[in-house]
Amino acid sequence: MTTSYNPPKVWKHESKGEGKFANINRPISGSTHEKELPVGKHPFQLYSLGTPNGVKVTIMFEELLELGIKEAEYDAFLINILEGDQFSSGFVKINPNSKIPALLDKSGETPVSLFESGSMLLYLAEKFNRFLPEEHPKRTEVLNWLFWQMGSAPYIGGGFGHFYAYAPEKLEYCINRFTMEAKRQMDVLDKVLGNRTYIAGEEYSIADMAIWPWYGALVSGNLYDAGEFLDSKSYKNLLRWSELIGQRPAVKRGKIVNRSWGDDNEKLIERHDATDFEGKVLT
Amino acid sequence: MTTSYNPPKVWKHESKGEGKFANINRPISGSTHEKELPVGKHPFQLYSLGTPNGVKVTIMFEELLELGIKEAEYDAFLINILEGDQFSSGFVKINPNSKIPALLDKSGETPVSLFESGSMLLYLAEKFNRFLPEEHPKRTEVLNWLFWQMGSAPYIGGGFGHFYAYAPEKLEYCINRFTMEAKRQMDVLDKVLGNRTYIAGEEYSIADMAIWPWYGALVSGNLYDAGEFLDSKSYKNLLRWSELIGQRPAVKRGKIVNRSWGDDNEKLIERHDATDFEGKVLT
Repeated sequence: MTTSYNPPKVWKHESKGEGKFANINRPISGSTHEKELPVGKHPFQLYSLGTPNGVKVTIMFEELLELGIKEAEYDAFLINILEGDQFSSGFVKINPNSKIPALLDKSGETPVSLFESGSMLLYLAEKFNRFLPEEHPKRTEVLNWLFWQMGSAPYIGGGFGHFYAYAPEKLEYCINRFTMEAKRQMDVLDKVLGNRTYIAGEEYSIADMAIWPWYGALVSGNLYDAGEFLDSKSYKNLLRWSELIGQRPAVKRGKIVNRSWGDDNEKLIERHDATDFEGKVLT
Repeated sequence: MTTSYNPPKVWKHESKGEGKFANINRPISGSTHEKELPVGKHPFQLYSLGTPNGVKVTIMFEELLELGIKEAEYDAFLINILEGDQFSSGFVKINPNSKIPALLDKSGETPVSLFESGSMLLYLAEKFNRFLPEEHPKRTEVLNWLFWQMGSAPYIGGGFGHFYAYAPEKLEYCINRFTMEAKRQMDVLDKVLGNRTYIAGEEYSIADMAIWPWYGALVSGNLYDAGEFLDSKSYKNLLRWSELIGQRPAVKRGKIVNRSWGDDNEKLIERHDATDFEGKVLT
């Protein structure tokens, strides 16, 4: 139950605190300070953070490297979003939307700037001709699920996760609304994975790489610590798949890249070489 | 201000009413009834509704037909989401996510099923080699913005629109949260369009077709009647672009396809032939 609220004719920004991310949410876009991005030696320069959208792309790079594709070597620099790194002039130049990840391909004559993790997965899949079948309908099925992830996960990250874990107050209406949608999405995946090994069929693809960091983490209870609340154990096919993907060596490496929290031996704040993983605990 | 709410250990679904869309939101997926979808004579069968995600695809079809590409002929059938058409066995077979639009390409030996409007735009662009440049970085820039739209609009439709226009109660925290994000996204577009004619550069592309039905409608006040609240007139570049796209004949046709509301001469509930538009007011 809430007190009655009448929205004004014209909305005005009044900073009242938005919980954990209050200082990085703004009603305007653009850079707040002049600062160039660092540049490493490899063809790809990734500016990211080890949250689910970032991990999608580091998994893809590690999968390509696992296949021996040296042209997929990358430098991964940390973007600390709580300190506003995403509002630097250098970052905004690549991604005017100021969200991680941002990617630069400097292998060709003209550098290519990428934003949105889905765009990166598609670009890398096409460039190296891996993890995305060329022929329809197999190709389409992968892309259907890639786009599904892009349009669905905001209800997890910006909806369920925010209201369940981060909002300054537990709002019953909002928690019910987004929990219902989170469970519906998990059920969509659970039903599809009842008939297939991977998300889009019998082949591992960029659809798995896009979906696993969000929904694999959600169903295993690693995201928002919401496993019990969501009754995750009831999504048996999704759990089976989550464990299958999680066992891949490239996934074990990719998921700790640009991680800025936790024990030192379970995170790799920046990644510039395969040897950077030495001494890390890859689980 | 709300009364204190303690989420239970395990969430249970209790239908308490979710406003206008209470009867179509569920915590599970899958079909609720056996019913096949109708099939027309054309290569493409679209099952949709004239809301922003549906309009993206009908604009694309009309743009292709405007170029004289007869292979892009389509039948567009209405999916009445308030009556649960999206939960029919036939619809779920194409789209296990039960959201409009769903599309079937039956032109080849193996029919191709598509869900997610972004996947459809990409598929059609590649199939007919239109509205998506082949060369990087132009191609990448279009895809960056296509994925941006997919990941951003949920904060408009499932966030701002829901809490501003549809939720049974005006929740101040939620309206502030999603208004801030809506304005930030509008500002992202406004800044980009200050330097370009179209979203991804000097060429009209599927990025414009994806973004216009949401953000063109939002800035012009046609979506949620929120123009004044969002101070839309301040987004001058976005308004300029919104009007430019809105003047295209294919857009004027596409936006009334599968529209089930409004005056008879301003809607086309089903579309099976170019002559179906005769007598309609195209504004």
